[in-house]
Amino acid sequence: MKSITLLGATGSIGLQTLDVMRQHPDEFELYAIAFGRNIEKAINIIKEFNPKKVVVQDEITKNKLNELHTNILVGNDGMVEISIDSNTDIVVNAVMGSVGLTATLEAIKAKKTIALANKETLVTAGHLVMQEVKKNNVKMIPIDSEHSAIFQSLNGENRQDMNRLIVTASGGSFRDVKRDELQSVTVEDALQHPNWNMGAKITIDSATMMNKGLEVIEAHWLFDIPYEKIDVIMHRESVIHSMVEYNDNSVIAQLGSPDMRVPIQYALTYPARLELPVSKRLNLIEIGKLHFENMDFERFPCLKMAYEAGKMGGSMTTVLNAANEIAVSLFLKGHISFLMIEDFIARALDQHEVTKDPDLDTILTVDQQTRVLVKSFIE
Amino acid sequence: MKSITLLGATGSIGLQTLDVMRQHPDEFELYAIAFGRNIEKAINIIKEFNPKKVVVQDEITKNKLNELHTNILVGNDGMVEISIDSNTDIVVNAVMGSVGLTATLEAIKAKKTIALANKETLVTAGHLVMQEVKKNNVKMIPIDSEHSAIFQSLNGENRQDMNRLIVTASGGSFRDVKRDELQSVTVEDALQHPNWNMGAKITIDSATMMNKGLEVIEAHWLFDIPYEKIDVIMHRESVIHSMVEYNDNSVIAQLGSPDMRVPIQYALTYPARLELPVSKRLNLIEIGKLHFENMDFERFPCLKMAYEAGKMGGSMTTVLNAANEIAVSLFLKGHISFLMIEDFIARALDQHEVTKDPDLDTILTVDQQTRVLVKSFIE
Repeated sequence: MKSITLLGATGSIGLQTLDVMRQHPDEFELYAIAFGRNIEKAINIIKEFNPKKVVVQDEITKNKLNELHTNILVGNDGMVEISIDSNTDIVVNAVMGSVGLTATLEAIKAKKTIALANKETLVTAGHLVMQEVKKNNVKMIPIDSEHSAIFQSLNGENRQDMNRLIVTASGGSFRDVKRDELQSVTVEDALQHPNWNMGAKITIDSATMMNKGLEVIEAHWLFDIPYEKIDVIMHRESVIHSMVEYNDNSVIAQLGSPDMRVPIQYALTYPARLELPVSKRLNLIEIGKLHFENMDFERFPCLKMAYEAGKMGGSMTTVLNAANEIAVSLFLKGHISFLMIEDFIARALDQHEVTKDPDLDTILTVDQQTRVLVKSFIE
Repeated sequence: MKSITLLGATGSIGLQTLDVMRQHPDEFELYAIAFGRNIEKAINIIKEFNPKKVVVQDEITKNKLNELHTNILVGNDGMVEISIDSNTDIVVNAVMGSVGLTATLEAIKAKKTIALANKETLVTAGHLVMQEVKKNNVKMIPIDSEHSAIFQSLNGENRQDMNRLIVTASGGSFRDVKRDELQSVTVEDALQHPNWNMGAKITIDSATMMNKGLEVIEAHWLFDIPYEKIDVIMHRESVIHSMVEYNDNSVIAQLGSPDMRVPIQYALTYPARLELPVSKRLNLIEIGKLHFENMDFERFPCLKMAYEAGKMGGSMTTVLNAANEIAVSLFLKGHISFLMIEDFIARALDQHEVTKDPDLDTILTVDQQTRVLVKSFIE
């Protein structure tokens, strides 16, 4: 029985993690959860799974839950406490944005297995996180479908034989929309992802292709490979989730129907697998064709910025991530147009002077400053 | 430095094995070769690689080579001798047909690593061969692109998590020819394989789809999986060489440009990989689309017969293989039409009374009797 701490329990990945646990009540127990403001969903989770500890975002939320649960913690300190708790084996980081960074770092130091759905953690502070992963010899297993695919494609292989990563991209909501038509797209348009059912932020990130950019940076850190050896290709069907090319030109890929429960479960069961009858078997004959197209960096400048920020390194990717989080949030609230997202990110990157090898304090400061700066763009 | 015995040196796989060795003179040395009648090619090989021992098919060939080499052996005994020789590490079985069976069995008993390109060995006597593989705990690494793909897709995984094998089929020379048009096809038509450059026998086997049938039987033995869990799908591009579906509905696949040197080299370097700059990197964007279609068992009765013979087991697959070898040879010599190949195999299977769990003598007898029988069909 594996005991699980779930950060971001009420989000899309959080709920799907709970669904995986529901399939295997003898394998997993929910030890603790952290969530933001979605109190309705949290109440249901607490009633169904009865976690020992619950972390909420603020005192107001805590007061609302006091009658339901006796062990409620608050904020970042609470997240850290349930992540290093000796009763938990696996910490699932499924929060949105870089808010889970400190808790993840502390969980690594406490030698917990990390199931990582939150790419911002590595984009913001990849060098610090991976340093601790190596130092503490912990398992960090990606949940993102692309990284899970690469992780699975590296099973039983020697890392030094890895020649290139091929990350696939569905193209997001606007893959068939010309660049000059993007001027007038709405939030509702942007939230229609062709293949995956995901949270709002990641769906917008898919439409701008920043999601793929964040994934490239995440892959750089997770698999210790230079940016020059990470390719992104457009693959409309999202059937091949990503690939690894080896030095003998053999390519290993992981495929499947688009269902996040598969990589979530794999992260919880690795190196074993378990049945998952609720997921759909891949039927390539039904699908018929798989398409592959060049990724157009001019059409998707966010991807280009991500590569550039990644190659510059240091604090630059912290700025990229924070600027993106705020810009997307401004777009979702209707304050800015779709194309202003990339504009705001470009401006934030332009204004930043990179710090090489930043420590955690520097990262958190840069992160906060960038958020303030980008918000100021609409004042 | 790995020392290699190469059975079938002058055939297509043999020559490509030598090409792989040519790329890595510090990794491999050619200890011994066996070949059939292609004396011209053999002379070139002997001059270039200087193997310590040479096995020829008959005394006439030996006499022709006596001036060139001092250690020439003859026939099956010679093949066995170079396969169990204490100076050799890996035996590559790249002969055509079931002629390499005894040598392979003896090599396994001598605990040699087996690189197996010859599927007839497992089709004819899979239960005996795999029994010896387990008993002697030897590595048997497939060279056939489909089986190499499955083997690679099983790297680092638990065999009990394997749910299904998905073997891809290009469709062969006649994939776009309707069944009633097959009546009049010629040997030249049949030898035009759309994707792979291979020997004549396997190219005909691809056109009849018997090749895929033999591969299904080979996969059954190699990966210890029931026939019900082996699917064949049509995949025109031969880019995905085959796949493994796991119990969590995750699918791992191996992809690459069609180049037999990749799986050959992998069999020689496993579990490591080596660079192979002479092979072409996979470019999915250039390829653009991958197609998948249902395999039509009525259109390709040889595949259906192979599944049926496989499921009956025992000596039935020995008959399938021997009947196919003779029928293909009769077609290549112009004695029978293309559609008579399947006819002859069906007749041989119909007339055979299956022996369960046959020993080697029984297998060799059934093999010989079937050859005589099928030849008699044209008398």
